[in-house]
Amino acid sequence: MKQSIGFIGLGNMGLPIARNLALAGYQLRVYNRTAAKARPLLDLDGVSQARAPAEVAEPGGVVLSMLADDRAAEQATAGLADKLGAAGLHVSLSTIAPTTSTRLARQGCGYVAAPVFGRPDRAESGQLIVLSAGASRDRARARPLLDAIGSAVFELAEDPASANAVKLAGNFLLMSALEAMAEAFAFAEKHGVPRARVAEVLTTTPLMANVYRGYGAAIAAGTFSPAGFSLRLGRKDARLLLEAASARDVPMPAGHLVMDHFTASVNKGRSELDWSALAIEVFESAGLG
Amino acid sequence: MKQSIGFIGLGNMGLPIARNLALAGYQLRVYNRTAAKARPLLDLDGVSQARAPAEVAEPGGVVLSMLADDRAAEQATAGLADKLGAAGLHVSLSTIAPTTSTRLARQGCGYVAAPVFGRPDRAESGQLIVLSAGASRDRARARPLLDAIGSAVFELAEDPASANAVKLAGNFLLMSALEAMAEAFAFAEKHGVPRARVAEVLTTTPLMANVYRGYGAAIAAGTFSPAGFSLRLGRKDARLLLEAASARDVPMPAGHLVMDHFTASVNKGRSELDWSALAIEVFESAGLG
Amino acid sequence: MKQSIGFIGLGNMGLPIARNLALAGYQLRVYNRTAAKARPLLDLDGVSQARAPAEVAEPGGVVLSMLADDRAAEQATAGLADKLGAAGLHVSLSTIAPTTSTRLARQGCGYVAAPVFGRPDRAESGQLIVLSAGASRDRARARPLLDAIGSAVFELAEDPASANAVKLAGNFLLMSALEAMAEAFAFAEKHGVPRARVAEVLTTTPLMANVYRGYGAAIAAGTFSPAGFSLRLGRKDARLLLEAASARDVPMPAGHLVMDHFTASVNKGRSELDWSALAIEVFESAGLG
Amino acid sequence: MKQSIGFIGLGNMGLPIARNLALAGYQLRVYNRTAAKARPLLDLDGVSQARAPAEVAEPGGVVLSMLADDRAAEQATAGLADKLGAAGLHVSLSTIAPTTSTRLARQGCGYVAAPVFGRPDRAESGQLIVLSAGASRDRARARPLLDAIGSAVFELAEDPASANAVKLAGNFLLMSALEAMAEAFAFAEKHGVPRARVAEVLTTTPLMANVYRGYGAAIAAGTFSPAGFSLRLGRKDARLLLEAASARDVPMPAGHLVMDHFTASVNKGRSELDWSALAIEVFESAGLG
Repeated sequence: MKQSIGFIGLGNMGLPIARNLALAGYQLRVYNRTAAKARPLLDLDGVSQARAPAEVAEPGGVVLSMLADDRAAEQATAGLADKLGAAGLHVSLSTIAPTTSTRLARQGCGYVAAPVFGRPDRAESGQLIVLSAGASRDRARARPLLDAIGSAVFELAEDPASANAVKLAGNFLLMSALEAMAEAFAFAEKHGVPRARVAEVLTTTPLMANVYRGYGAAIAAGTFSPAGFSLRLGRKDARLLLEAASARDVPMPAGHLVMDHFTASVNKGRSELDWSALAIEVFESAGLG
Repeated sequence: MKQSIGFIGLGNMGLPIARNLALAGYQLRVYNRTAAKARPLLDLDGVSQARAPAEVAEPGGVVLSMLADDRAAEQATAGLADKLGAAGLHVSLSTIAPTTSTRLARQGCGYVAAPVFGRPDRAESGQLIVLSAGASRDRARARPLLDAIGSAVFELAEDPASANAVKLAGNFLLMSALEAMAEAFAFAEKHGVPRARVAEVLTTTPLMANVYRGYGAAIAAGTFSPAGFSLRLGRKDARLLLEAASARDVPMPAGHLVMDHFTASVNKGRSELDWSALAIEVFESAGLG
Repeated sequence: MKQSIGFIGLGNMGLPIARNLALAGYQLRVYNRTAAKARPLLDLDGVSQARAPAEVAEPGGVVLSMLADDRAAEQATAGLADKLGAAGLHVSLSTIAPTTSTRLARQGCGYVAAPVFGRPDRAESGQLIVLSAGASRDRARARPLLDAIGSAVFELAEDPASANAVKLAGNFLLMSALEAMAEAFAFAEKHGVPRARVAEVLTTTPLMANVYRGYGAAIAAGTFSPAGFSLRLGRKDARLLLEAASARDVPMPAGHLVMDHFTASVNKGRSELDWSALAIEVFESAGLG
Repeated sequence: MKQSIGFIGLGNMGLPIARNLALAGYQLRVYNRTAAKARPLLDLDGVSQARAPAEVAEPGGVVLSMLADDRAAEQATAGLADKLGAAGLHVSLSTIAPTTSTRLARQGCGYVAAPVFGRPDRAESGQLIVLSAGASRDRARARPLLDAIGSAVFELAEDPASANAVKLAGNFLLMSALEAMAEAFAFAEKHGVPRARVAEVLTTTPLMANVYRGYGAAIAAGTFSPAGFSLRLGRKDARLLLEAASARDVPMPAGHLVMDHFTASVNKGRSELDWSALAIEVFESAGLG
């Protein structure tokens, strides 16, 4: 006999996630504000449609929700905890504020924050990267569901809000990469290389992937010495970049930001550390050692 | 009979590159300001040491140089073109300003700018990513040498300075990633997840690699519609990020920069494009369409 | 017979303001959370102390409040409107969020937002600059009180939140001036002129005062042509500044910000407008014409 | 018998300055690349026109120059020092790079860097603010000329480049004020107050003038305690500002910059200093105590 669960929110992300849960053998009661969006699921075995969000819940059961923003996440799950009861579990997949997650966690049922990385195509193929935070008993209960929708599940901490924070941190890395690519492409194109060619050189090689993997670990561990590439030389390159950008009339706000952090680092005696020691300036400003 | 070439500059990068050329069967005349640094090469078959930089050159021959900065690159190659003559070729591997490269290119011999991506470990394993720009005849002549030191060679354009610009653009992407990781780690740690765990989640998965590959091409092609993830939603996440950062006292300058670009984009009617359309704001500010 | 009013909040600012009202002939019922702070006022003619904030109010009367932040402003005035009634008036002098002001305005009594510029010394001498926003009847009723505490009163609009916004905008101008002075002093000192001397040259002359007066009006009116000093030349100076800053290792984030706006302005064809046309870039990003 | 001097560069600024020197009783030999621009001067008593820049000089004499940029300043004064000789004096009024000024100072004659603040209208009325740096003997010789064109002359240091640095620092303060006003006006207008009214409130009162005078001295002296207005409260206002800006879709890059400096200052234990202690963050990043 299949386990029966509830699912609220069938948008671009929610729909393929729900489908994967159905295909994995769960019985689903689904709800979406615009009811028609549920249609593609209703042909699947064991899927039924509810007329109100709280109707997807049964006492002591499990409900997943995937909503577009904080307001929707709060509205669509109002009354949910009452229906689920203390023995129930709400698994919130939405990208919402850590503080909203904390509020949702205090409504009287179990709660796991499980935001995901990946766009609709990865949701469809069950290749999402899934975060999970909450009481360990709740996380253990949510885990098989999360394994059914993602290729990797990272269990983070007891505080649900921490998963939402890591999700926002990840989205910030993505945004920063968008900004940096745009500035880099503009810079190179103004030096005669079409942006498509620059993209090919800089983004189809393992260059950037290696950087995150290699430097990510180094920054986290604080191993800035011996320097693979010194901060002094990194700053030299930042200066060459900005001089060339200035000469070709390319605004590079992210470039200036990095340059100023390099300069402050040099002034504070960190010239001969690895250029990833740029992070020290950031950590100290955040009050972290 | 092996081809005989010159090599100037045996630092952290130059030494392993020269070794790979020797191992690939080239006869090398090498020069380094601190002569002792050449020692590890002198045991190799066909390597000899010169007492002045220009001595590594022979009329009509090829010389590679790998120096630490613009000044060293200009000083160490002074007189080189005279010795090489119009039939000779100078291949400059150094990371230098596009304008410096332009000056080096005008000294009377053939010239290829061939800056490389990769740290000393990749130089040793011959896995550098190599750029190449210059007259096509010169590039063709340099190509076998570049293939001997890298795993990929990208030929860019006739103007040598363009390779130096792309190299700086790439280093800028790397710096931006360092800055963004530092801010993201500080943010997440202040929400209760240790930075090492954040690094694991965000940098050991294919998340960032996919972003560069997928969005790099999209930004270059200007395909911002239909939106995989709308700019409006991207901005919502930026706002959640900055509110949470403010609440936990985390300065996020790169986050603010991106937020301001999202906001301007929304004000200019781009809410429903993909969030990578952030790039339009950057391109327009650079005077690019 | 003197008019009798209430006053809540006797901190650094509230105390001298209340004193000036007493000296101007008003009878005051005052309240402060720490009751002892009221002592200096109690010797004045017509001042009495209340034991709860709402006790300072009488039906149909007027109460002024000056609290340290939004939370204090909301807490200390809870129940106040009920006591004042629809015929009463709450004049909020606090620097609070426009949205908080909007909430305070909806509590059932008349409401004027009247935040002030000036530090305690100007509060003591009755030289504050006072903003005033709210229904015109309410503003008219508040006006004599505001005239008693300031040297200038600016009536702004019907929407009370607008006064709080202008106050924040003013404080932002002040903060920006602090940041800019710090960067300018660091820059000059690294070029051999002690910061005290730089301060003397740049801040004791009418230079900056004239700039705000002259350019403030020009930016507001949008009169950027003919150029008194062209944006092209302004950008030249920004470039000289940043090159010199780079050479002396002075981070100048505000300098870079301005430079990038100049560059974007040049790319958009505004080189020959006055350099104050920098504002167009800012307005367009804000969605304003 | 009137003193005879040379003057090179009769643009918007040079022309009225030269006129004031002529009116003050000096005999002038003037040169301008576009000769016709000299016409308005030629009717004045004692003014003659030279056909080449060096012709305005006589051995042991004094020449003033006012050129548009570094290149013009170097080109128009080439050969000038040879003509003036070691006993001659070149007074450079141009806004140029400190390094350019250093080069001009090394050409074999006396040299004073005397850049000026003020637009053409102040040049005409002889109300410029004039900086002066160079050997004290040279400055003493230049002084009467500078008194004839400005309302205040500040003698700074022996190193001529220092005057050019202070001039750039001043122009940076002006630019920053333009940027800040634009952001403040956009913010306030989006909260319902037309920019012209905001300009009136914030820039016609003594508010900003007092800030520069009062805080300029405090920042220079490093007197951040006791706090007139604490950094903690300043940061509160920055946060209110940015939240309101976010809600109304106003990008405020300068606001974010200041906010991040406030946050770092709080994290480093400076909450209860005066908000002008924001400067400490800037000074420390510049390597200054």
